[in-house]
Amino acid sequence: MGNRSPEGFQDVHVMIFIGFGFLMTFLQRYGFSSVGFNFLIASFALQWATLMQGFFHGMHGGKIHIGVESMINADFCTGAVLISFGAVLGKTSPIQLLVMAMFEVTLFAINEFILLSILGAKDAGGSMTIHTFGAYFGLMVTRVLYRPNLDKSKHRNSSVYHSDLFAMIGTIFLWMYWPSFNSAVTAHGDDQHRTAMNTYYSLAACTMATYGMSALTAHDGKLDMVHIQNAALAGGVAAGTAGEMMLTPYGSMIVGVLAGIISVLGFKFLTPILEEKLKVQDTCGVHNLHGMPGVLGAIVGAVTAAVATTDVYGKGMADVFPDVASGEIGASYQGVRQAISLAVTLGIALLGGLIVGFILKLPVFGAPSDAICYEDSIYWEVPGEEEAHDGQLTAVRTAETEKLNN
Amino acid sequence: MGNRSPEGFQDVHVMIFIGFGFLMTFLQRYGFSSVGFNFLIASFALQWATLMQGFFHGMHGGKIHIGVESMINADFCTGAVLISFGAVLGKTSPIQLLVMAMFEVTLFAINEFILLSILGAKDAGGSMTIHTFGAYFGLMVTRVLYRPNLDKSKHRNSSVYHSDLFAMIGTIFLWMYWPSFNSAVTAHGDDQHRTAMNTYYSLAACTMATYGMSALTAHDGKLDMVHIQNAALAGGVAAGTAGEMMLTPYGSMIVGVLAGIISVLGFKFLTPILEEKLKVQDTCGVHNLHGMPGVLGAIVGAVTAAVATTDVYGKGMADVFPDVASGEIGASYQGVRQAISLAVTLGIALLGGLIVGFILKLPVFGAPSDAICYEDSIYWEVPGEEEAHDGQLTAVRTAETEKLNN
Amino acid sequence: MGNRSPEGFQDVHVMIFIGFGFLMTFLQRYGFSSVGFNFLIASFALQWATLMQGFFHGMHGGKIHIGVESMINADFCTGAVLISFGAVLGKTSPIQLLVMAMFEVTLFAINEFILLSILGAKDAGGSMTIHTFGAYFGLMVTRVLYRPNLDKSKHRNSSVYHSDLFAMIGTIFLWMYWPSFNSAVTAHGDDQHRTAMNTYYSLAACTMATYGMSALTAHDGKLDMVHIQNAALAGGVAAGTAGEMMLTPYGSMIVGVLAGIISVLGFKFLTPILEEKLKVQDTCGVHNLHGMPGVLGAIVGAVTAAVATTDVYGKGMADVFPDVASGEIGASYQGVRQAISLAVTLGIALLGGLIVGFILKLPVFGAPSDAICYEDSIYWEVPGEEEAHDGQLTAVRTAETEKLNN
Repeated sequence: MGNRSPEGFQDVHVMIFIGFGFLMTFLQRYGFSSVGFNFLIASFALQWATLMQGFFHGMHGGKIHIGVESMINADFCTGAVLISFGAVLGKTSPIQLLVMAMFEVTLFAINEFILLSILGAKDAGGSMTIHTFGAYFGLMVTRVLYRPNLDKSKHRNSSVYHSDLFAMIGTIFLWMYWPSFNSAVTAHGDDQHRTAMNTYYSLAACTMATYGMSALTAHDGKLDMVHIQNAALAGGVAAGTAGEMMLTPYGSMIVGVLAGIISVLGFKFLTPILEEKLKVQDTCGVHNLHGMPGVLGAIVGAVTAAVATTDVYGKGMADVFPDVASGEIGASYQGVRQAISLAVTLGIALLGGLIVGFILKLPVFGAPSDAICYEDSIYWEVPGEEEAHDGQLTAVRTAETEKLNN
Repeated sequence: MGNRSPEGFQDVHVMIFIGFGFLMTFLQRYGFSSVGFNFLIASFALQWATLMQGFFHGMHGGKIHIGVESMINADFCTGAVLISFGAVLGKTSPIQLLVMAMFEVTLFAINEFILLSILGAKDAGGSMTIHTFGAYFGLMVTRVLYRPNLDKSKHRNSSVYHSDLFAMIGTIFLWMYWPSFNSAVTAHGDDQHRTAMNTYYSLAACTMATYGMSALTAHDGKLDMVHIQNAALAGGVAAGTAGEMMLTPYGSMIVGVLAGIISVLGFKFLTPILEEKLKVQDTCGVHNLHGMPGVLGAIVGAVTAAVATTDVYGKGMADVFPDVASGEIGASYQGVRQAISLAVTLGIALLGGLIVGFILKLPVFGAPSDAICYEDSIYWEVPGEEEAHDGQLTAVRTAETEKLNN
Repeated sequence: MGNRSPEGFQDVHVMIFIGFGFLMTFLQRYGFSSVGFNFLIASFALQWATLMQGFFHGMHGGKIHIGVESMINADFCTGAVLISFGAVLGKTSPIQLLVMAMFEVTLFAINEFILLSILGAKDAGGSMTIHTFGAYFGLMVTRVLYRPNLDKSKHRNSSVYHSDLFAMIGTIFLWMYWPSFNSAVTAHGDDQHRTAMNTYYSLAACTMATYGMSALTAHDGKLDMVHIQNAALAGGVAAGTAGEMMLTPYGSMIVGVLAGIISVLGFKFLTPILEEKLKVQDTCGVHNLHGMPGVLGAIVGAVTAAVATTDVYGKGMADVFPDVASGEIGASYQGVRQAISLAVTLGIALLGGLIVGFILKLPVFGAPSDAICYEDSIYWEVPGEEEAHDGQLTAVRTAETEKLNN
C-alpha cells in the first residue's frame, strides 16, 4: 500500500481529466462546459472522495491515511461522478453538478465499502463500483430531471467536424490508459501485469467489433463517430472486474467483442427507446458505454470467480481471492458474493439517483431552461467578435442565444 | 541520482512541450507560433541548459555528468524560459526568442547555483528558481520592449472558440502532471510521495477557488476561460517550494485557495493597471500565474522551513533539510536562507530582464511591427485557399495582412 | 523480460494511438479517417502481431509467451504498419488497409526474426525493422496503386489552420515519448538510460536543424508546418539503431542534425521528383520522415557497432553486443551484420510491398475513386447541418461530394 508507485496514478489522472473532459466536447456549443465543468466537478469530487473513502476504509487511529493509493481511489470515485455527468450533460447548471457530486461521492463510498469490505467482492477496475454505479445513478437522475420540451435545444445536441476530433482526444487517452486504470490497485507483479494484458486484449477486440457493428448497422455502411468514440471503450469497462482474474487473452477478447456489440446496438436501438418510452434522456449514451458493459463485466467477474481453482491460479490465488485461498470460502461462494454485489450496486445507484434527482429539481440550483440547453454562453464568456475566425457564425449564435433568452 | 527512473522525466517533458505549447494557443491567429516557437525554443533551451547547469553544478573531473536528473533539470530551466515567452508572446521574432533563451538559461543556471549550492535553499518544484525567476525576467523584458501602439494589433489579441479548447489541452496536462513536476527531483519514497500529494491537494483546492472567484468577479456571474486556463494552475506554482515540506493536506489546500484567489484578482484588476501605469504588456498574464503565486510559494516555503521540527519530520528531516538535520543550522535559519533566496531571485530576474530587454531591442533581431503582432502569417506558411474549411475567413485575414504590410 | 515495467509500454502506446493518429489529421477533410482508421488498423495489427511475433520468437513449449515485452513488440510492429498507412493515406479503403496490415505484420515478423535471431543484428528502436521496413513497404504499395488522375482530389490534399494544430498534438507526443520508444526493450539501467539520452539529444538537435532548414529553403524565410510536423521527428528515427550504443551526446546531436537536414530537403526537393518521375504518391512524406532517416540510422548503427571496443563499453558490452562481449565475433563483424540487415530489410520491404500492392488492386476491396480521395464523408457520417458552426462550408462540401458521386 505504502510503496505503490505514482506512475499508475498519473495514468488514471489523465483519464479523469483529459479522457472524460475531452470525450464530452463532442457537442458543438458545449466544449467549454464539457471540459471546464469536468475540471470543476472532478477537482471537487476527488477532495470530497478522499474524506468519504477515508472515513469508510482509510481510518487508522482516528486519522485518515492518505497516499498514492488513496489518490487513485479518489480518482476512481471521481470517475463514477463523471459518468453520471455524461448522462445529464448540457441540461444541468454547475451548482446542480456540484450538489450531485457531493451526494454521489458519499453514496459511492458507502457502496464501495459494502462491496469490498462487507461482502468481500473483488472489483479492481470498477465494473460495478465505478461503471455500473455511475451509469445507473446518472440515468436515474436524468430520468427524474426529464424535460418534455428538450426538443427546443435539439439543434445543438449534435457535433461539428472539429468537436468530434476534440472528442477523439478523450476517447484515445481513455482507451490507451485503461490497462493502467484496471490494474492501478491490483497487487504488484503478476497480478498487475495480467490485469493490464486482459484489459488490453479486451479493448483491442472491442474496437474491431465496434467498427464492424457500426458499419453493419448503418443504412449505407458508413461509420458513426458516436460509436467509435464510445463503444470502442466498452471493452475496458467489461474487463473491470474479471481483468484481474484468469480471464486469459482469448476470454478477454470474447468479452471485448460482446461489449462492443451490445454497446453499438444500444446506441442504435436502445437509446431512442429509453428516451421515448422510459423518458431517460441520456446525452452521452452512458447506458451503452458504462451501464450495460458494466453489468456484463460484473457477470463475467462473478462467473470467472466461481470457476477459479488453485490449479489455475497457483499462489496468485492469495492476491486475487484471499478468502478462497485461505480456505475460508469456496470459489463458487465468491461468485455469489460478486453477484450480490451487482444487485446491491444497482439498488443503491437507482435509489440514490432517484433521491438526488429530486433534490436537484429544487429551483434554487438554477437549471437552464429547455431552450438553452447544450449551450456554453449561459455559463461562459464565449469569444467571438467579428474579427474572429468563425466570426459570422458566432454572431449568429449569439443572436440566437439572445433571442432564446427573451 | 544515478538510479532515478525516467518516468518522472517523461511527465515533466509533457508539461514543457504539450503543456506550455498548447496553453499559449489561445490566441486566434497565433497557434502555429505558440506551439511551434515553444517547440523551437524549448529544444534549444534544454541543450543549452545541459551545458550551463552542467558547468555550474554537474562537473565531475572536468566532464559534465549527464543522466535522467540532468534531463529533468534542463527541462526545469526550459520551463522558466517558456514562462518568459508567455510575457512577450506575439510581439517577438523567433530570433529574439532564441537570443532571450540563450541569456535567460545562463542567468537561470547562475541563480539556481547561488540558491541551491551557495545559500543552501530548498526549491524542489521551483517556486523561486523557475516561476518567480521566469515571470519577473519576462515581465522586465516586455517592459523594456513596451509598444505604445500595440492597439493596432488588439483585435488579434484574443481567442476564438476552438483556440480556447486547444489551450485547455495545455492547461489540463500541466495541471495533471504537476505532482510529478514538483516531486521530480525530490528524494525517492516518502519525500516524493509527500510532495506529489501536497501539490495535488493544492491544485484541487486552487481549481475550486478559481471557479468561485471567476464567477464572483464577473458582472453577470459567467466564467472566464482565461481564469480557468491559468489561475487553476497557480496552486501548483505556489506549492513549488513547500510541497516537499510538511505542509499537510490542509495547509496545501489553504495555499492553493490563496493562489487561486490572487491569480484571478490579478487577471481582473492588476493586469490592466500593469499595462496602463507600468507599461508592462503581459500577453499571457504570467504575473498572475507564475509571478505572484511564485512569490507566495517562496514565502510559504520560508515560513514552513522556519517552523520545521524533528518531531514532525522524523528521519525524513535529512532528506528535506540536511543542514538542519545535521545540526549545522537551526530551522529558523533555514527560513532566512529561503527568504534571502527569494530576494536574490527577484534581483537577478529583474536586472537580467532589463539588460536582455535592451539587447533584444537591437533592430537586427527583426521584431514584428506594431500592426502585425499576434499573427502567424509573418513567420509561417499559413494554409487557407478557397477550398479550405474556413476559406473565406482566411482570405479576409490574408488580405488584411497584406494591407498592414503596405 | 518478465519483470519489465508497464510504464515504457504506456508511453509507446501513446505514440501509436495519439502520435500517429493525430499526426495524420493534417488533411482538411480526412481527420475522422486519419485518427479513426489509425485506431482501427492499430487495434487489429497489435492482435495479429502478438500471434505472428509469438509464432516466430515467443514460443515456449508450444505456447506463445505474452507479457509487457510482447505488448511493446506488438506496438512496434503496429508502428511499421502505420508508417505504411501514411504513404497511402487518403487513397485506400479501410478494407484495403486491414488487408495491408495483415500481410505487413506477417512480413514484419519474418524480417524481424531474420535480423534479430538469425543475423544477430541490434535494432532496439527499430531504425531498420520499423522505420525502413514500414516506409519502403508503404512506398512500394503506393507506387503499385499509382493514380494518374489524383489531381482531381488535389484541392483536398492540404491542411487548414486547425487541422495543422491537431497534427501538432501528434507530432509533439511522438517527439516527447521517443526516448521511451527507443529504450523500451533495451536492458534495464545504464543501457536504457543511455538510449533515452541519445534519443533526446538527437531529437533536440534535429528540431533546431529542421527549423533552420525550413526557413532557409523557403523563398521568403517562412516556416513550413509540414517540415515542423515531420522532419523534427527524424532525429528519433535516425537514433533507432545506434541509440543503444555509445553514440555519445555529441554524436547523437550530429546524427539528429543530419536527419533534420535530409528530411527537410527531402520534403522540398525529393517528394515532387518521386511523384513525377517514379510515380510514388507519398501522402505524408514517409520517405522523408521514416525512409531516409531510417537508412541513415541503420548506417550509423553499423558504423558505431563496427568501432565498439570493450574499453568504451566496459561490462555494458554484454548488454549491447553479447556476441562481441563473449568473444564469438569481432566488433567489425557486428558492423557487417548490421549492414546486411539493412539490405535484407530493404529487400523484403520492397518485394513485399510490390506483391501486397497488387493484391490491394483487386476491385473487391473497394478503393475510392480518384475524385473522392482525401475525403471523410465516403466512410463516415460527417456532421454538419446548417446549424453547425461551420455549417455553410460543410454544406458546400456535402454538395460537392454528391456531385462527385454522380
